[in-house]
Amino acid sequence: MSANDDLQSILDGIKVGDIINVVLNNNSIISGRCMPRYESSEKDHIIIKLNNGYNIGIKLNRIKSITKVSSFSIVTEELPEKSLDNSISLKSQYRNDIDLSKMSNLPKIALISTGGTIASKIDYRTGGVTSVLSAKDLYTSIPELSLYASIDTEILFNEYSENIGPTHWNLIANKIIDKINSGIYDGIVISHGTDTMSYTAAALSFALQDLPIPVILVGAQRSSDRPSSDASSNLIASVIFATQLDYSGVFVSMHGSISDEQIHCHLGTRVRKNHTSKRDAFKSIDISPIAVVKEDQIEIQKIPSNIILQKKNRNKINKEFNVIPKIKFDDRVFLLKYYPGLNPLILENVQKLGYKVIIIEGTGLGHINKNFFFYLKEVIASGMLVFMTSQCIWGRTNLNVYDTGRDLEKIGVISLSNMLSETATVKAMWLLANYNDLDYIRNKMQENISNEITYITPIVEDVIS
Amino acid sequence: MSANDDLQSILDGIKVGDIINVVLNNNSIISGRCMPRYESSEKDHIIIKLNNGYNIGIKLNRIKSITKVSSFSIVTEELPEKSLDNSISLKSQYRNDIDLSKMSNLPKIALISTGGTIASKIDYRTGGVTSVLSAKDLYTSIPELSLYASIDTEILFNEYSENIGPTHWNLIANKIIDKINSGIYDGIVISHGTDTMSYTAAALSFALQDLPIPVILVGAQRSSDRPSSDASSNLIASVIFATQLDYSGVFVSMHGSISDEQIHCHLGTRVRKNHTSKRDAFKSIDISPIAVVKEDQIEIQKIPSNIILQKKNRNKINKEFNVIPKIKFDDRVFLLKYYPGLNPLILENVQKLGYKVIIIEGTGLGHINKNFFFYLKEVIASGMLVFMTSQCIWGRTNLNVYDTGRDLEKIGVISLSNMLSETATVKAMWLLANYNDLDYIRNKMQENISNEITYITPIVEDVIS
Repeated sequence: MSANDDLQSILDGIKVGDIINVVLNNNSIISGRCMPRYESSEKDHIIIKLNNGYNIGIKLNRIKSITKVSSFSIVTEELPEKSLDNSISLKSQYRNDIDLSKMSNLPKIALISTGGTIASKIDYRTGGVTSVLSAKDLYTSIPELSLYASIDTEILFNEYSENIGPTHWNLIANKIIDKINSGIYDGIVISHGTDTMSYTAAALSFALQDLPIPVILVGAQRSSDRPSSDASSNLIASVIFATQLDYSGVFVSMHGSISDEQIHCHLGTRVRKNHTSKRDAFKSIDISPIAVVKEDQIEIQKIPSNIILQKKNRNKINKEFNVIPKIKFDDRVFLLKYYPGLNPLILENVQKLGYKVIIIEGTGLGHINKNFFFYLKEVIASGMLVFMTSQCIWGRTNLNVYDTGRDLEKIGVISLSNMLSETATVKAMWLLANYNDLDYIRNKMQENISNEITYITPIVEDVIS
Repeated sequence: MSANDDLQSILDGIKVGDIINVVLNNNSIISGRCMPRYESSEKDHIIIKLNNGYNIGIKLNRIKSITKVSSFSIVTEELPEKSLDNSISLKSQYRNDIDLSKMSNLPKIALISTGGTIASKIDYRTGGVTSVLSAKDLYTSIPELSLYASIDTEILFNEYSENIGPTHWNLIANKIIDKINSGIYDGIVISHGTDTMSYTAAALSFALQDLPIPVILVGAQRSSDRPSSDASSNLIASVIFATQLDYSGVFVSMHGSISDEQIHCHLGTRVRKNHTSKRDAFKSIDISPIAVVKEDQIEIQKIPSNIILQKKNRNKINKEFNVIPKIKFDDRVFLLKYYPGLNPLILENVQKLGYKVIIIEGTGLGHINKNFFFYLKEVIASGMLVFMTSQCIWGRTNLNVYDTGRDLEKIGVISLSNMLSETATVKAMWLLANYNDLDYIRNKMQENISNEITYITPIVEDVIS
C-alpha cells in the first residue's frame, strides 16, 4: 500500500453527499457535506461544503480521522406533485440518478452554457481557471436541480465573458428565440462569465423586449470546484427564478450576500458587477432586486411603481413571438470616461475611427470640462450623437442645475437620467444596428424601453415652495 | 402697506438664529432654526434648518403665524480655554460677531476657496447655481466655525470642479506649501466642487507626501442657500478634522449619511463620489472612513494595519517641509474604460495623440478582450506603459486567476491591485511629470505611496490546504 493509498483509506466508507466530521491533525473538527472532486484536480484532498455554503478543501495528510454523521439520502420515489409548493422545503432532498421520464410534471428549462467561471474549474497543473464544464456537467454535479425543473442543456459557445461582445449577444438572442419557439420551455437559463454579464443582460433586454417567459443569466464568482464556490447556489436559484418567477424579461441571478443565504434576481438593465471577487458582487443600481431566493424559497419583492414588468405568459409562445425581434448590434458606440486632464482632441480621434455615437461618462450630474465644448459642437454638427451619463454610478444626470449642464444641453449633449453608462452603451449599439434614422435613435435613447430609465421626477423633492 | 410688506410683517421680531415654530395655512407646524436668506434670493420666503439638518424654504404666503421658541444666543464673553475639549458640546453656542483678537487661543486654519457648490448659490433669475460666495462669506454665514478655529480665508480661484485639472492641482499644492511655510497654521481646509474633488485629493496626496499638518478638502452636494444644504455641516466638520485630527495628510470631509448626523473623513486616495446628488455621495472604497464627526464631536476610527498614517507634527514646519515637493502633473495619461465591442485600434490612436501611459479600467479581476492583445504588445513594445485597474470599483485586480490575466501579464500589462482607476490615472500623471525613467515609474506605480494600494495578501483566504 503506497502512502497515497494509505491517505485514501481514511475515506473508506465515505460517499459524496454524506455529512461528515473531519478531525484534523491539530484536533480541530470541521463538519459538513462531502462534495465531489473533479477529475482534473489532485486526489490528495477532499472538499467539504460547510453549513454557511462555503466549500473548503482539506489535504488528506492534514486529516487524522473522518466520521460519518449521516449518509447521503437517495430519493428514489417519485417527487410529490406539489414539489414546487413554496411551503415545502426541498433543500434536504436529493436524487442520485436523474430519470427524466419521471420528471414530466416539472417545469421545463433550457440551460444554455456560454462559458465563464460557472462553467470552469481550476487546472491544478497550471494553477489557473479554465472554462471546461458543460451545462450538462453542472446539472449532473448539482442533483438538487432535479427538484425544480426538467432541464435540457446545451453548450452554445465557451468563452470567458471578457471576450464576449456584440456578435455573441446576437448568437445568444438567436438561441433564446429558437428555444422559445420550440414551445416547450417555461424559462431559460444562460450560464455566463461574470465580467461582462451585465452588458449581455442589457443587450438581451433591448433585443428581446416581448419575451413570453423569463430569461435568467447566471454566473459564479468562484469556480465549481473551488472552496467557497457560489456556482451551485446561484444556478439553483436561477432555475427557481426561471420556473417560479411570475414575470417575463431578462434577469441576473447572483449572490445577495457573502453567505449562501440570499440569491438576488436583478433587472437586466439595472445591474452592475461592483466587486472583483466577492460572491455578492452584483448589485441592482438605484432599485432593489425584484426577487430573492432564501432557503430555496422565492420571495417576490414589492415592485416599485417606476418599474414596468410584463407578466409571464406562455400562451404568447408561437403567437406573438414569431415576429422576428431586432437582435443586431452595431459596435460604433464609444464609451468615454471623463477625467481631469483628458485631451478634448480624443473626440476627433473617436470620430475618425468611425464611431457614430459617444456616451460620455461625465462627473457628478453629468459634467465635463468646458474645454470640450468647442469639440463637442464640432462632432455633433457633423452628425455624431453625444449622450451624457455619470461616473458616480448611483443617481441621475441632470443638466439643469449648473451652468456647465445648461451649456452642454445647448451644444446638443443629451442627458440620459439614471441610465447606467454600460447600459447606455449597449442600448446605443442596439438602436444603431436596428434603426437608420438618427432623430429616432436620439429620441429612443431618452425613452424608457426596458427599465433602463427609472427616475421619475418626484412631486416634492424638498419642501421648498 | 403693500401685500409684500404685509407678508413680511409676520417676521417681525424674528431674527436669524432664533428657534421658531411656523404654523402653515393648513395648520401643520414646522419647527427649526431661522436661517439667513441670501441677497439674490427672493424676499417672499424664509429658510428654516430642521433638527435633521435639512434646510427648507417656506413661502410667506403659506404661513399663518410664527412663534419664537428661543432667541439666538449671542456669546459675548471670551471662549473658555478648554473650548476644544471633546467633552464639551459646543453646538448650541454661537458668536454673532467675530472678533479675531479674542480667538488667539484657538487653533489657526487657512481656508482656501476654489469654487464649487459649497461656494455657490442659486441664481433665482436663471434658476441655476453659480459659484460666487467667497470663503469669507461662508465663514461669516456659519458663525459656529468661530468656536473651533481662527480662520483666515482666501479665494485661490473660482471654478466648478469639472473644470479643475492638473494645472489647478499644481496651483492648490503651491498655495498649501505657502500656507504651511508661513508657520502659523494648524490645518488647511480647501473648499472644492464635488465633481472632481476625489481626483484633486489624490493629486495632493501624491504631491504633498510629508505634510506636517492635515489638509482637508470639503465640498457640498447642495448649495448653501438651498433647502437641505450640506455646506455648513461639512465645513464645520472639515474645520474640526483640520484642528483635532491627530494625523497629517490629505483627506476629504463629506456627509456620511443623508442626515447631518455623521460627517466622514476619507483618505484622499481611497474616496469616490458614488452618487450624483445625495448628501452622502462620497464613500471610502475598500476601507472605512478614518474619522467621523458626530454631534460636533470627532471620533477617530480604529486604523487598520494596512493603512499608514503620519502623525500630525507642527514642529516639522520650516524644518523638513522646506524641501520643495514634487508638485507637477503631466496629463499624457489615458484612462480607457473597457466595454464589449470596444475597437482595439483605439490604442494606436491614443498613442498618436501623444499619450505615454494607459490605465485600462478592465472588467472583473482586470480583464480585456483577447482581440486587444496584439495591439497591447505593439504599444508596450514602443515604450507605452499600460496598467490594469477594475471597473468593479471595489476589490482588486489579480492577473493570476484566469488565462486572460496571465496572458496580459506576459504581454507586459501591470496589475494595480486595489488602486482606484481615478487614483491610478492621477498617480501616473504625477510620476510622469516628476520622474524621467520609465522603469522607475513602472515600479512606483505598483508601490504603495499614499494608501492607494491597501490590499495585503491574506495569510488564509479560504481554508484550502
